[in-house]
Amino acid sequence: MAARRKNNQTTKIQPKRARNLSPGTVTYTGKKTTTVTKLDIIDYSKEHYHRFETNDIHEAFNYEDSTNITWINVNGLSNTNDIITLGNHFELHPLIQEDIVSTYQRPKIDEYEEYLFIVFKMLHYDDEKLTNEHISLVMGKDYVLTFQEAEGDVFEDLRERLEHGKGRIRGAGADYLMFAILDAVVDNYFSVVEFLSNKVELLEDKLFDDKEDTNITQEIQDLKKEILKIRKAVMPLREVINRLEKIENPLIEERTNKYIRDLYDNIIQVNESVEIYREMIWGLMDMYMTTISNKMNEVMKVLTIMASIFIPLTFLAGIYGMNFDNIPELHYKNSYFYLLGVMALVFLGMIWYFKRKKWL
Amino acid sequence: MAARRKNNQTTKIQPKRARNLSPGTVTYTGKKTTTVTKLDIIDYSKEHYHRFETNDIHEAFNYEDSTNITWINVNGLSNTNDIITLGNHFELHPLIQEDIVSTYQRPKIDEYEEYLFIVFKMLHYDDEKLTNEHISLVMGKDYVLTFQEAEGDVFEDLRERLEHGKGRIRGAGADYLMFAILDAVVDNYFSVVEFLSNKVELLEDKLFDDKEDTNITQEIQDLKKEILKIRKAVMPLREVINRLEKIENPLIEERTNKYIRDLYDNIIQVNESVEIYREMIWGLMDMYMTTISNKMNEVMKVLTIMASIFIPLTFLAGIYGMNFDNIPELHYKNSYFYLLGVMALVFLGMIWYFKRKKWL
Amino acid sequence: MAARRKNNQTTKIQPKRARNLSPGTVTYTGKKTTTVTKLDIIDYSKEHYHRFETNDIHEAFNYEDSTNITWINVNGLSNTNDIITLGNHFELHPLIQEDIVSTYQRPKIDEYEEYLFIVFKMLHYDDEKLTNEHISLVMGKDYVLTFQEAEGDVFEDLRERLEHGKGRIRGAGADYLMFAILDAVVDNYFSVVEFLSNKVELLEDKLFDDKEDTNITQEIQDLKKEILKIRKAVMPLREVINRLEKIENPLIEERTNKYIRDLYDNIIQVNESVEIYREMIWGLMDMYMTTISNKMNEVMKVLTIMASIFIPLTFLAGIYGMNFDNIPELHYKNSYFYLLGVMALVFLGMIWYFKRKKWL
Amino acid sequence: MAARRKNNQTTKIQPKRARNLSPGTVTYTGKKTTTVTKLDIIDYSKEHYHRFETNDIHEAFNYEDSTNITWINVNGLSNTNDIITLGNHFELHPLIQEDIVSTYQRPKIDEYEEYLFIVFKMLHYDDEKLTNEHISLVMGKDYVLTFQEAEGDVFEDLRERLEHGKGRIRGAGADYLMFAILDAVVDNYFSVVEFLSNKVELLEDKLFDDKEDTNITQEIQDLKKEILKIRKAVMPLREVINRLEKIENPLIEERTNKYIRDLYDNIIQVNESVEIYREMIWGLMDMYMTTISNKMNEVMKVLTIMASIFIPLTFLAGIYGMNFDNIPELHYKNSYFYLLGVMALVFLGMIWYFKRKKWL
Amino acid sequence: MAARRKNNQTTKIQPKRARNLSPGTVTYTGKKTTTVTKLDIIDYSKEHYHRFETNDIHEAFNYEDSTNITWINVNGLSNTNDIITLGNHFELHPLIQEDIVSTYQRPKIDEYEEYLFIVFKMLHYDDEKLTNEHISLVMGKDYVLTFQEAEGDVFEDLRERLEHGKGRIRGAGADYLMFAILDAVVDNYFSVVEFLSNKVELLEDKLFDDKEDTNITQEIQDLKKEILKIRKAVMPLREVINRLEKIENPLIEERTNKYIRDLYDNIIQVNESVEIYREMIWGLMDMYMTTISNKMNEVMKVLTIMASIFIPLTFLAGIYGMNFDNIPELHYKNSYFYLLGVMALVFLGMIWYFKRKKWL
Repeated sequence: MAARRKNNQTTKIQPKRARNLSPGTVTYTGKKTTTVTKLDIIDYSKEHYHRFETNDIHEAFNYEDSTNITWINVNGLSNTNDIITLGNHFELHPLIQEDIVSTYQRPKIDEYEEYLFIVFKMLHYDDEKLTNEHISLVMGKDYVLTFQEAEGDVFEDLRERLEHGKGRIRGAGADYLMFAILDAVVDNYFSVVEFLSNKVELLEDKLFDDKEDTNITQEIQDLKKEILKIRKAVMPLREVINRLEKIENPLIEERTNKYIRDLYDNIIQVNESVEIYREMIWGLMDMYMTTISNKMNEVMKVLTIMASIFIPLTFLAGIYGMNFDNIPELHYKNSYFYLLGVMALVFLGMIWYFKRKKWL
Repeated sequence: MAARRKNNQTTKIQPKRARNLSPGTVTYTGKKTTTVTKLDIIDYSKEHYHRFETNDIHEAFNYEDSTNITWINVNGLSNTNDIITLGNHFELHPLIQEDIVSTYQRPKIDEYEEYLFIVFKMLHYDDEKLTNEHISLVMGKDYVLTFQEAEGDVFEDLRERLEHGKGRIRGAGADYLMFAILDAVVDNYFSVVEFLSNKVELLEDKLFDDKEDTNITQEIQDLKKEILKIRKAVMPLREVINRLEKIENPLIEERTNKYIRDLYDNIIQVNESVEIYREMIWGLMDMYMTTISNKMNEVMKVLTIMASIFIPLTFLAGIYGMNFDNIPELHYKNSYFYLLGVMALVFLGMIWYFKRKKWL
Repeated sequence: MAARRKNNQTTKIQPKRARNLSPGTVTYTGKKTTTVTKLDIIDYSKEHYHRFETNDIHEAFNYEDSTNITWINVNGLSNTNDIITLGNHFELHPLIQEDIVSTYQRPKIDEYEEYLFIVFKMLHYDDEKLTNEHISLVMGKDYVLTFQEAEGDVFEDLRERLEHGKGRIRGAGADYLMFAILDAVVDNYFSVVEFLSNKVELLEDKLFDDKEDTNITQEIQDLKKEILKIRKAVMPLREVINRLEKIENPLIEERTNKYIRDLYDNIIQVNESVEIYREMIWGLMDMYMTTISNKMNEVMKVLTIMASIFIPLTFLAGIYGMNFDNIPELHYKNSYFYLLGVMALVFLGMIWYFKRKKWL
Repeated sequence: MAARRKNNQTTKIQPKRARNLSPGTVTYTGKKTTTVTKLDIIDYSKEHYHRFETNDIHEAFNYEDSTNITWINVNGLSNTNDIITLGNHFELHPLIQEDIVSTYQRPKIDEYEEYLFIVFKMLHYDDEKLTNEHISLVMGKDYVLTFQEAEGDVFEDLRERLEHGKGRIRGAGADYLMFAILDAVVDNYFSVVEFLSNKVELLEDKLFDDKEDTNITQEIQDLKKEILKIRKAVMPLREVINRLEKIENPLIEERTNKYIRDLYDNIIQVNESVEIYREMIWGLMDMYMTTISNKMNEVMKVLTIMASIFIPLTFLAGIYGMNFDNIPELHYKNSYFYLLGVMALVFLGMIWYFKRKKWL
Repeated sequence: MAARRKNNQTTKIQPKRARNLSPGTVTYTGKKTTTVTKLDIIDYSKEHYHRFETNDIHEAFNYEDSTNITWINVNGLSNTNDIITLGNHFELHPLIQEDIVSTYQRPKIDEYEEYLFIVFKMLHYDDEKLTNEHISLVMGKDYVLTFQEAEGDVFEDLRERLEHGKGRIRGAGADYLMFAILDAVVDNYFSVVEFLSNKVELLEDKLFDDKEDTNITQEIQDLKKEILKIRKAVMPLREVINRLEKIENPLIEERTNKYIRDLYDNIIQVNESVEIYREMIWGLMDMYMTTISNKMNEVMKVLTIMASIFIPLTFLAGIYGMNFDNIPELHYKNSYFYLLGVMALVFLGMIWYFKRKKWL
């Protein structure tokens, strides 16, 4: 009964918001405060590929004008000045700059004249704890900007495909790159849901184990929180992708639409899985209640059998332990043995009774 | 309390996706890895019927140009090269080729200029375990392609109807063949739901049996997973058929529409049955809880009756087992028999009391 | 714990479908196999009324051409040849002919050029068991055909009104007759729901009775199935009537519309009642759980009171039953009576304690 | 366990319908059968106010043609002839006449060329029992007819405002009077919900009382029925008012629309409160379950503590009550007192153990 | 079991309405009856800032005509004459004047020709109790009126931003001020939800504590009421902001729309958090049930172990406490010690048995 949890932080659902600030104020609200903003720039076309890492925000500006597609990935949002510098260079609206560093912002899509702005969440299990990272994406005519809270992401395969020119990606435009990034995120959701599904199955097995696990209630509650957290990332992204499929924006080429529709199919599927696991987890509590009740039934049966057999026998022994002067049976030669026989019969009768009731 | 299950695999809901691949990459994600791709080709018209089985993918190409309707059924998706060859011959879009072998793909319909592409699931109980098989269908002007993971399907009756020219099928076009295939699948859903309904009724009966079945919770949970699995196949197919009814595509003749509307009625009915059984299964847990509680009540009553009768009697015996020098009653001649009488009265009074309370 | 049910058949929700048949094949799927098809023909106008019963399907043909309204009611669907003969004479589409004898078909409405086709269910309690009968209705310019599985229906009052020319019915057209038939069915739903409501109230009363009714869980489950069955008949019919209200069909006169809107109000009301009783029945399980728990509480209290009073007293008696050489109290003159006094005090103290806790 | 209820009638949800009658037949279906139909006529304009009560239906006809606004309130629906006479005079459609006396009719609005017809329910707590009364309203160019089952209503304040010319009412038209009547009814719903809220709070308090209230389950169930009854009155009226706001009818002046929109705000608010209390009442059952379980826990603890303390002690006493020839301890001088000491230690140890477990 | 609550008032959900008044009557329905109406007037433009507090309602009139933006905040609604004076000066519709002082009014937006009228709720935790305050806002061409029940609000940061000219606010129009006020309120909802989330986590921890907290049910119920109260404030405001985003009103400038869309994102997020916590709180009851059951299991185990071990041993002792003349074992020299050995074996066997069952 002493199940304590130490890491409420990670299962915290309610985001902290930078409150009481003038709307449009660029204030970082996350927990990862790497002081340095790292840029990871990939500049490519069908024939050309160049990757470049730097801490100097201004180096990014060189790539903008090239005819190649440029993907500028920014790691670290705590240095808001860098974000503002970069944002102003790319002429991002103050509200966008605010959203980029507001880690609480829920997934959404905003259309501007020169670019599309998408906010979404990257989920990963970090040492058994589900953490989510706030990511923003700006897609312009020939560039894609992505902003992450910290280094380490789910885009490594994508970068490899870019480097080795696998798939259609090198020949396609910035819109396809945007799709590929979202596709990597949705793919990652599949992994997360699968990991969660394993946790659910493990807990289900644990439920039927005989061991005393009084913290199962806590574990179920934690699973509930995790599934709610995943849902909070997946459900609005589904809407985002749905809108992405429908908007008619010159930035998105006709041929990319088929891929986005495919992506929408995938996120719907993730969403359905999330709903199913949600239902399963909610059902776990009922299952747990029945196993508790079953265990109690078993305990009660042992008590009832022991008490029902030995209490009457003890009474019989008590009868002949009385000190009345005149208890005739006490003086017959074999009455002790007869009584033992009667007791044996009572014992066997009880056993037979409980066997018939299937309690034994 | 030792209910173990051995076959988590089959009740696994979460599909595995071939992750981190460039979209459009044709990679088989299923478990059935028959190395050989088998083709089952039926070429027919009102007067003509020819059935032909082969392992050589190129033999299929001969039938394409004929004025007859050609149904090419492909068994085995693990040899992706064959799929690509066939796909390229019929000019299938790379995304379609990917979907054909991606067994995780949820049911959907895609309209292309030259053909319709439909993905759906075939369900069957395999040795008491519900398995689902991924099927894709491409319907062109005078051909239908179907892709299955393995041999063995629910289309045997349909093939027979084709061979013997029963019903309208031989005189109708490829659109009617597509409808007939979907109709066979939906018919099969009826059987699956009926099978499930039997399992539910069996479990319901089991609930009221007196035997110790501590794994009923597990069985209910497994039923929940099965119904969710069926739902995952039925619900999106309902949308597919709904859309099929509404699209105005030159590939679908006017007269076939009535049949598709009928099919839609049927899938709605399957869906309603699934929802009803889902509710029933969820209710089973409540029922199980009450039966457990009823059993516990019964156990408690036995304990209470035994203890309430014999503990006071034992106390009475204990009184006269005391060794005080001066206990006058001990020395009266018949006090032992009087006490036995009192004990009998107490016993009968208790019996009467419990009878009145209807615990006996 | 031995509640057995013998009549699963009637609470079976899942309909059997004639599977694996070519769509449009006319095959009877019901259980009532009266070999003879009986026709009950009513031919009427404002001045004229003629009722005629026959087994010869061809006699129906004479009435078709008359300027009167003709209502041909067909009892018995197992002789499909008769249905086909009649269907062909009235030029019913093969799919309609199939639906007429497919007892599994859910309520629906189909518009054809020459007639309207409506499928619905007639519910009645037959010897405490809820059964549903499949009815089809074809409404043409001056005739109405109805098809029932067996004789006996809810239209007797309607027939009487027709015979005695009560109400507007004799002067109105076939569309009003169709409305009157549906109205009789919906009226009947009210009775069925009322009957169910009585069952719910009876079960509620039973819950609070002290008797051992271990089959209450079963009865609640059966009620759940009945309400689901009613719902399955009512909900789609609501949609049918809603559509009937909206379609603009020359077969339906303007002045009949007001009546159909009224009918729609009624079916909505039936539907609401069904939803309310569904909620009530679902709540019964919770109620039952609390009554079980209350009973267990009572049992436990008796046990606790008996054990708590007599176990300490028995211990006291045990003390002075010991055989130590040196127990000074044993030899005092009145110590036995003092001990009896102490025991009485303990007894009364316990009684007082339990009274204060309100357990007595 | 003997909670009996005597007044099922008032908690009956399912309305009785006059069945098997030709649609449009005017038959009273309520329970209040006052033989006399009372009319309460108010004739008013900005300058003029006249109130008049009569039993003669024909006196109402005099007021119709006046240029004043006339409100004819009819009490008593059992004398259907009077209703028909009045209805025919005002040229009410037969279906309306039927609805006026059909107390089962759910709230609705019907638009006719010359008038609007609205059906709604008046709720009031009558001796702790919630009863609903069927009211119909016909609003014409310069008159409003209201039909009630019995005398006594919620319009007294409204009549007073009319008499003393308070507010806008005397200067406004019949449409404002209709609004004012509906407003009084919705206001009354607020009182009813408030009354219910008090009952919920009282029951909540009762739940935590220690007294044996085995009929709480019954009371919760009755509250459920009451809230369902209120919902059945409020929800359709919400739709009615919503439609009233939207219809563009020359009978309703532009300036009245603002008031109707306000009324719609109010009925939405009632509806939300109803939903909230519904949820609260449903939650009560869970609360009750936990209090029962808590009580059982308490009972079990008393039993466990008493048994765990005294059963081992009794065993110890039993040891030295044995009659073996050779039990050395029996003959030592102070062994009795040593044993008493050991017993005291066991006793205290147990007390300490249960204290540590916080069961004491 | 004696958890009493003293402050039902604050958890009261049902609002009191000033009943039976003519619609449009301005009657204060709140509880805060400060007799004085205080005005807090801020008059500003890009260059100019003036703040002024007064009790004289007429002083507000001077600011109306200025070209600056004027924010008149009214504290105290109980003096309805002041409200009417002010309302008439600004030509507010009688219904608006009624809504301003009707604290029960749910959040809504009304469009008038000259101004927008918005009603919303300010939530704050007051000494652990959630209270809500009724606020109305009128936004005209160059003024904003806000009406509060009492002094003390969430706009202090906003006033500071106004004073020091931070952010865009001083240069923007009255529409931006309205947005900023709503933004402050929504920001405050975030705090309230966060506070609630802490209460939920605290209660969750408490659940697993071993202490006897029989009032947890009450606390969960109170949390349910709080979340329902928050929901009642948030949900309609979401609709209000949604409509605010969509209406095309000349009073709202194009550039403000982006901010309102952002605000809408935020209120959706609050709403989602509310729904999630609602689900969590509902789940708490289940968790509590399982912890109660677990505790009962533990209690039962102690009882069963104690009884099962000592009842058989006591029986054995009882056997040899009998007074039969002929019990051979009594006379053997070491039989007492042999019996002690047997008892020790029984004892150890029981311990081993319970250990194996993991009850110890």
